[in-house]
Amino acid sequence: MNDVYILGIGMTRFARHKDTTAVDLGVSAVADALGDAGIDVRDVDAMYAGHVYGGMVAGQSVAAGCGLAGIPVVNVENACASGTTAIIEAAYGIRSERYRCVVACGFEKVSDRAGMLAPADDDFEGQLGLVFPAWHAMRARMYMNEYGLTREQLALVAVKNHHNGARNSKAQYRNEITVEDVANSREIASPLRLFDCCPKGDGAAAVILGSKELADHAARHSRTVRIRGMGLFSGAADGKYSALFEDVTARAAQTAFDEADLLPEDTNFAEVHDCFTIAEGLRVEGLGLCPPGTYFQQLEEGRWTTDGRTPINPSGGLLAKGHPLGATGVAQLCEITTQFRGEAGDRQVKKADVAVAHTRGGSVPGTEGGSCAVVVCMAD
Amino acid sequence: MNDVYILGIGMTRFARHKDTTAVDLGVSAVADALGDAGIDVRDVDAMYAGHVYGGMVAGQSVAAGCGLAGIPVVNVENACASGTTAIIEAAYGIRSERYRCVVACGFEKVSDRAGMLAPADDDFEGQLGLVFPAWHAMRARMYMNEYGLTREQLALVAVKNHHNGARNSKAQYRNEITVEDVANSREIASPLRLFDCCPKGDGAAAVILGSKELADHAARHSRTVRIRGMGLFSGAADGKYSALFEDVTARAAQTAFDEADLLPEDTNFAEVHDCFTIAEGLRVEGLGLCPPGTYFQQLEEGRWTTDGRTPINPSGGLLAKGHPLGATGVAQLCEITTQFRGEAGDRQVKKADVAVAHTRGGSVPGTEGGSCAVVVCMAD
Repeated sequence: MNDVYILGIGMTRFARHKDTTAVDLGVSAVADALGDAGIDVRDVDAMYAGHVYGGMVAGQSVAAGCGLAGIPVVNVENACASGTTAIIEAAYGIRSERYRCVVACGFEKVSDRAGMLAPADDDFEGQLGLVFPAWHAMRARMYMNEYGLTREQLALVAVKNHHNGARNSKAQYRNEITVEDVANSREIASPLRLFDCCPKGDGAAAVILGSKELADHAARHSRTVRIRGMGLFSGAADGKYSALFEDVTARAAQTAFDEADLLPEDTNFAEVHDCFTIAEGLRVEGLGLCPPGTYFQQLEEGRWTTDGRTPINPSGGLLAKGHPLGATGVAQLCEITTQFRGEAGDRQVKKADVAVAHTRGGSVPGTEGGSCAVVVCMAD
Repeated sequence: MNDVYILGIGMTRFARHKDTTAVDLGVSAVADALGDAGIDVRDVDAMYAGHVYGGMVAGQSVAAGCGLAGIPVVNVENACASGTTAIIEAAYGIRSERYRCVVACGFEKVSDRAGMLAPADDDFEGQLGLVFPAWHAMRARMYMNEYGLTREQLALVAVKNHHNGARNSKAQYRNEITVEDVANSREIASPLRLFDCCPKGDGAAAVILGSKELADHAARHSRTVRIRGMGLFSGAADGKYSALFEDVTARAAQTAFDEADLLPEDTNFAEVHDCFTIAEGLRVEGLGLCPPGTYFQQLEEGRWTTDGRTPINPSGGLLAKGHPLGATGVAQLCEITTQFRGEAGDRQVKKADVAVAHTRGGSVPGTEGGSCAVVVCMAD
């Protein structure tokens, strides 16, 4: 089984890209990643493209736009976990020696869609009003009752991630905010306010994955990033899941850590699916980085900031960097690689040898949730 | 590298399923396939779900509806090649020993979509009027000029496939038609008439793939089907492609035959992407089953009927069995398995040891086409 290396990264700024198509965004990110890897297009064997609204052959269009027309392309769709799913499927292509070099990319144009993201036709909970903001609001309220979470602690997630996003040139929001700004922002679904929710935006990200042989050959960067463990699951339906503990996150994380032969406590920093402030806490707890019910206390104590013991979302996360669905998971790997290389500037974490990426998305009534994907990376 | 076996198959009838959702169709097909395989749901490791319009976590919904909630699910979208792509990705999961047992399924609800299938936003050729019927009409006209194809020969494809579909209880159209019926049907894009075009319809299909160990253990059927070779490509952009020869089909076929260590002439029968009558000829020629420009002559001579030397589309193909996009490629593997088992009744082919499945779909301007997938199966 081949090890999998990240040879190059590329991403657009996450923003409202009014006059650019999803495919154009994808082409830009893939071209940047090819350049960063120093790989010739003839060395690329295949592409996995993660997107939700891109259309039936959007990945093939991106490939054609990058001089990669002809290669095998698979469009992958797993809601907000689409990008990470593309990475996992691409990485298995390297692991299994099916391919030597694979592009994993994600792209999305969301800003031209009216209103919030609509629930799927068969998501009757969503159709009846239990859309994502409402669901996360209920979880926040339950967490408050169970663990004594305060409204101010919740706001600190947005404050931290905006602090990081302000230091990331690719982020959609580059302004710092205060607890008061969160408290004064428009109410969305009590207790969640506007700054508790990630924005709508457009963007693309790409990584070039390759075998060790290719990584050694192409080595152009200070440090090499190896994908050590991966986990992909859909939510269970055994009735044991809880709104306060993300079993699907825990299962995907355990598989990924087991594969990597690492423990959650080995994690130096993580990029986590913070679609809402409450979600960051629940997902960090689900990943096993702290016990259930303790995330927000440790947030107040400074553990999760870029100069803390375990920085969470140094990129700014979904809350500040933005969330163009399919691009999100791939952008997390771009951030991890940037941090491993020590090129993250003002948001550089102190120790970057082991990092975790996590996305989760979609809703299937009667189960714990749609899809969850976790990737564990290690410096080589 | 593990060999890949088809342990079980299931499909709905292809039809206008007015009151059934795409997910419900998928659940029905997967449940049937699990029953046919005699596999317990706890033995299933993962699912790949091919669909175009299913939505962001439709595969996860199908899994949950079959008692498979919790497993890794990947939704795969490659236009009309989505189902075969799901099969190829699932089969690589077995080959690479990532999984022991994987469900590959495809499902689609098309009948509730108004009008023809709309071209993608970035398919400017389609937006300008070069939609699929128009493109295939131009190819038919060129073929007529180049090789002397007659309008009657073209009609014989529809006549043959309706003859087969009339003998398939899963087919959308179960009536035989004549050359006159084709000639008298409504003109769509000259020279193509209504019966030269596949219908809109809904449906689902599923196959259970497993390792040899599992195939031996689960053996419940007279014969075992092994997936021997697979090819997946997107259309090239090197300007060498021709409207009269499908380079992307030829490349996917060559990879699949090479992997199988077989030649095109070893093929006993094939399921081919006959979205239009002209397309069947071009694809059979692209697969290498006969030289370019000879398909229709050999059609008149009877080579491609179920009692001919190399039956094409014994199931009825897209023209008669129907074409619910994501389901199509998976249904081809169901037909191949049924034929290998000798259970195809009135449409049974004489020799069923080596068979080929082929789908192609999508359009990317500036390249030869969207996506093409070929699978070579062999009796074990």
